[in-house]
Amino acid sequence: MPRISTKGQQMPESPIRKLVPYSEIAKKKGHKVYHLNIGQPDIKTPDVALNAVKNADITVLEYSHSAGFESYRNKLSSYYQTHGLPINTADIIITTGGSEALLFAMGSTMDQGDEIIIPEPFYANYNGFSTASGVNVVPVISTIDEGFALPPISAFEKLITPKTKAILICNPGNPTGYLYSKEEILQLAEIVKKHDLFLIADEVYREFIYDGEEHFSVMNVPGLEEHAIMIDSVSKRYSMCGARIGCIVSKNKEVMATAMKFAQARLSPPTYAQIASEAALETPQSYFDDVITEYKDRRDTLIAELQKIEGVKVATPKGAFYCIAKLPVKSADDFAQWLLESYDFNGETVMVAPAAGFYSTPGVGLDEVRIAYVLKKEDLIKSVEILKEALIAYNK
Amino acid sequence: MPRISTKGQQMPESPIRKLVPYSEIAKKKGHKVYHLNIGQPDIKTPDVALNAVKNADITVLEYSHSAGFESYRNKLSSYYQTHGLPINTADIIITTGGSEALLFAMGSTMDQGDEIIIPEPFYANYNGFSTASGVNVVPVISTIDEGFALPPISAFEKLITPKTKAILICNPGNPTGYLYSKEEILQLAEIVKKHDLFLIADEVYREFIYDGEEHFSVMNVPGLEEHAIMIDSVSKRYSMCGARIGCIVSKNKEVMATAMKFAQARLSPPTYAQIASEAALETPQSYFDDVITEYKDRRDTLIAELQKIEGVKVATPKGAFYCIAKLPVKSADDFAQWLLESYDFNGETVMVAPAAGFYSTPGVGLDEVRIAYVLKKEDLIKSVEILKEALIAYNK
Repeated sequence: MPRISTKGQQMPESPIRKLVPYSEIAKKKGHKVYHLNIGQPDIKTPDVALNAVKNADITVLEYSHSAGFESYRNKLSSYYQTHGLPINTADIIITTGGSEALLFAMGSTMDQGDEIIIPEPFYANYNGFSTASGVNVVPVISTIDEGFALPPISAFEKLITPKTKAILICNPGNPTGYLYSKEEILQLAEIVKKHDLFLIADEVYREFIYDGEEHFSVMNVPGLEEHAIMIDSVSKRYSMCGARIGCIVSKNKEVMATAMKFAQARLSPPTYAQIASEAALETPQSYFDDVITEYKDRRDTLIAELQKIEGVKVATPKGAFYCIAKLPVKSADDFAQWLLESYDFNGETVMVAPAAGFYSTPGVGLDEVRIAYVLKKEDLIKSVEILKEALIAYNK
Repeated sequence: MPRISTKGQQMPESPIRKLVPYSEIAKKKGHKVYHLNIGQPDIKTPDVALNAVKNADITVLEYSHSAGFESYRNKLSSYYQTHGLPINTADIIITTGGSEALLFAMGSTMDQGDEIIIPEPFYANYNGFSTASGVNVVPVISTIDEGFALPPISAFEKLITPKTKAILICNPGNPTGYLYSKEEILQLAEIVKKHDLFLIADEVYREFIYDGEEHFSVMNVPGLEEHAIMIDSVSKRYSMCGARIGCIVSKNKEVMATAMKFAQARLSPPTYAQIASEAALETPQSYFDDVITEYKDRRDTLIAELQKIEGVKVATPKGAFYCIAKLPVKSADDFAQWLLESYDFNGETVMVAPAAGFYSTPGVGLDEVRIAYVLKKEDLIKSVEILKEALIAYNK
């Protein structure tokens, strides 16, 4: 029997999805499961995007340009410029989700055995994309005690080797909700310039910032043009995760020409989804105002409720729609599985994502979970109540 | 300035797209360009697929299951079984085009430095996917004089090393139009079993078979279950290249579990396109009958017209909608560029794909082009007339 690849063996399982079989058990028992494990918002997709697809006059569903519709890239460039990001059409390649943009970024900048430094905890699929690209993740630990702020630059410098090619950040962060300050981004800019590295910034949650804070993009750092690669996506911005449209953005022409070769090999991003994404750019500001108000309200509710539970520690997220909570348990993995397999509170239970899968360092974050506040307020209150009762029962 | 990856430098440019700047020149001169270079059919997408998207009742455009809609996989399994392929739902993962299925197949079975044997000429993007996967392509040459039949098994055996992990075929073939016989598939089955390799078969043109011949799938070889991986796509079958939906199919559970980890990392295939693809399974047989009749007619016309040109040699394709034509020129690359840049016949010219990009061996196929018969008959006749006149002018 032929053998699978070593790379394939090393591919990590998604920490968000590995508990799915247990959620099936809970559902079979007739238990209602509140899904706090995945970043699938319940927010309505803008009508303007949905209607554009309904009204599209298609006879032959053709390939698009490998970089995506030119009309879409032009409008997207205008969108960025309106939001203060100096991005031209030529700086953009449309991708099949932010996922593909990350794969193109890694493939264009890194070879087998190269190293990428990522502050952890980080979006779990960075592990998968790195493994698929043959790249080694070098984690630099950020802690709940520091609210997941950027680790000191000295911690990065210690990790830089001749194999280091890039630093990857998610801003605001999944799973931490941490928003890097302008000063932190400038510190990162200095270090990548000093060591001739790329700074890859996953900014897909850019619009989800609370408390009047402002997002500072890597595209806004003067002199960083050759180093900065931005990853973006429509998934969260317009609650259209299923579209699978994102983009890779850079002023570095060599990077873009290389990413374009990867883009040509896979022919084109999906046509229907591009129609929806192009139209979504017409979404009125009121939509975002409502969504931000809703998420802020959910965040405030979730954090306030979590803080009431004895032994739970949580860092208040400033952006995105996740938080990391430290629980009074030894193994959050075991607890999360038990919640689905063996527990219910009046016929209901919750599904959370054990945070260990968001760390690359073994043994770190074992007592933490990621909670996504993608459900409505009442459901979040119920979910936290269930968590509270469950912790009492579990620790007995 | 940070450097791009070696892999990125090695990524081949698409031979189909590298002449695009020259076609822009032709268009700027006001010349009409007949596109025989790309496999973008002009055939109408089935209404049942287009209408399903128009009528889809979506409020939140959500992620789908990473393996694709369960309903779609179930119906696709039935479709295959109806067509004599013993494929169950569990044997299928829906991918973003056949492209992603190829990437998953390579990633799941091969590591950096491993080798894959491919009869050439082959679909040019196999080079790109191999480079992206760190895999080395080992070509085995098939020739226009043999009508691009399978090279003798001894030619494969000579190339097998401890690094060889798979043989990849395209059946029927892009760019050759060659249809492997049952005997040829069984020969390949023997060799992969003997050497414990995978046999990856790109069967996306399965429905496009002419002259009453029958397609024999790798999924139909008893005892090959652990070795066979089938790549499929809706792009050509339903003329919906822009959907970007394909699938990877195998009975090898380890391969499928590994491919699933790659699938989870990128979250899900596009939702709209899955709706279209699932509905497309309801396309009436009359649609295919008409399409096959149309393509056969085009093929017959194209081949007959090409054979009238002195010095042109062409192997009659038995399937798909491409042929390789040997031209009386030294460099088909130069000729194809000249056609766009410097030639017109009554204000019209043609764009063909130089075939060298479909070979991995340097210096082979320099006088060949790939012609896609994706245009209507009258346009094909005109195109060949232009080619004929152009060859006279070019060779003066």
